[in-house]
Amino acid sequence: MKHARILHNGAVCHATQAADGRLQLSDGTLLEEHEAVWLPPVEPRTTFTLAINYADHAKELAFRPPPEPLGFLKAANTFVGHRGITFRPDDVAFMHYECELAVVIGKTGRNIPREQAYDHVAGYTVANDYALRDYLENWYRPNLRVKSRDTCTPLGPWLVDRDDIPDPMNLDLRTTVNGVQTQSGNTRDMVFDIAALIEYFSGFMTLSPGDVILTGTPDGVVNVQVGDEVVTEIAGVGRLVNTIAALPR
Amino acid sequence: MKHARILHNGAVCHATQAADGRLQLSDGTLLEEHEAVWLPPVEPRTTFTLAINYADHAKELAFRPPPEPLGFLKAANTFVGHRGITFRPDDVAFMHYECELAVVIGKTGRNIPREQAYDHVAGYTVANDYALRDYLENWYRPNLRVKSRDTCTPLGPWLVDRDDIPDPMNLDLRTTVNGVQTQSGNTRDMVFDIAALIEYFSGFMTLSPGDVILTGTPDGVVNVQVGDEVVTEIAGVGRLVNTIAALPR
Repeated sequence: MKHARILHNGAVCHATQAADGRLQLSDGTLLEEHEAVWLPPVEPRTTFTLAINYADHAKELAFRPPPEPLGFLKAANTFVGHRGITFRPDDVAFMHYECELAVVIGKTGRNIPREQAYDHVAGYTVANDYALRDYLENWYRPNLRVKSRDTCTPLGPWLVDRDDIPDPMNLDLRTTVNGVQTQSGNTRDMVFDIAALIEYFSGFMTLSPGDVILTGTPDGVVNVQVGDEVVTEIAGVGRLVNTIAALPR
Repeated sequence: MKHARILHNGAVCHATQAADGRLQLSDGTLLEEHEAVWLPPVEPRTTFTLAINYADHAKELAFRPPPEPLGFLKAANTFVGHRGITFRPDDVAFMHYECELAVVIGKTGRNIPREQAYDHVAGYTVANDYALRDYLENWYRPNLRVKSRDTCTPLGPWLVDRDDIPDPMNLDLRTTVNGVQTQSGNTRDMVFDIAALIEYFSGFMTLSPGDVILTGTPDGVVNVQVGDEVVTEIAGVGRLVNTIAALPR
């Protein structure tokens, strides 16, 4: 099943995807996709983000793949939903999107062996993990100005139940900017796969329901500009639409 | 006024400090300090932590003070309350406490000039920002294994209203381990003061109610061991008691 959180008549509502693709509210109301104000499908608790977790992206950045996962955290105000606006500060020279599979934790765990990792997954959604490269001093551990700006992490549209995605390690990802494809990849090319990431983080921290792991992006990240429509899409998971707007300095 | 969050009869309750120092619940019930299970006095939303924000601590670590604030984020499961237990993994060689003034945001703001910074402060509490030094590759941006372990950030006991602390930039801090003083300093020695930190972070991110800024620690950080009672204390703000327990690998 696919789940969404939307604003409807001023209230936050849970919705599911009806057979015809529309949003169905718990009272049976049906809405077209464009009639809803989409929120991130989960309210992220601790959000882990991976730097350089696709071999081709590492190569693109002239780095060797890291010896262990390079995780950092996200701030609360960085998340927006499907069809949201992301602000591009007017004093930056380079801002790139990153299409990423987001893994949502559904069950508390610590020291989770990789064989049991998927027992702790609630489902999946699509993330666009924008980066403001001007402020990047260190690829391995980006600072807050690179990765935690307001609105710079669209999530959605749907939270797709784990069991509806039989092989999350073989999903095509792609990004289009104004309809032109600029990024493509497949989750099979992750350096550390989903089970490894869950094993790694839970090896020193408890993972809790609502925690989210953004699993990294393949190569093909390009600069985006005000007015661009950026669509990050993962086969079977969703098609996340975002538009870049100006943010005065 | 001083505010606490406690567990009482299985429920999360708000309490204030009565004239005799006891905890007073909203129904008038009075509790001794040791009768309460203390939670962090706020549920931290985005939590910013400062690396190397006291000149003497920078010197202790053989670093020059940084040219701008070195902020990173904390994970949700790292917080515990007053009189809580912090786990020391049995495979680390060096774990140190850090006594820090925690600034709790009370009002939303973006691009807050330093002259208006305190308008956005709800109050203050004491933090103990433990670090697991074994995993420290980079003093300027500690990784998750250093700074976001479960239970490794005690907060409390009280949230003290802003106006009850007329000069937060002149507060004595000290830490004792098993009753022996090992760290002392004064908030006046911060490299970036509270107003500068609020101006800095809000310059690129919205600050929201419930966000917390841990403002850094002075010198005098030493290794702690299982069984140690570590008390971090800030004059007028509070005395935060914590005990180290063993965490099997």
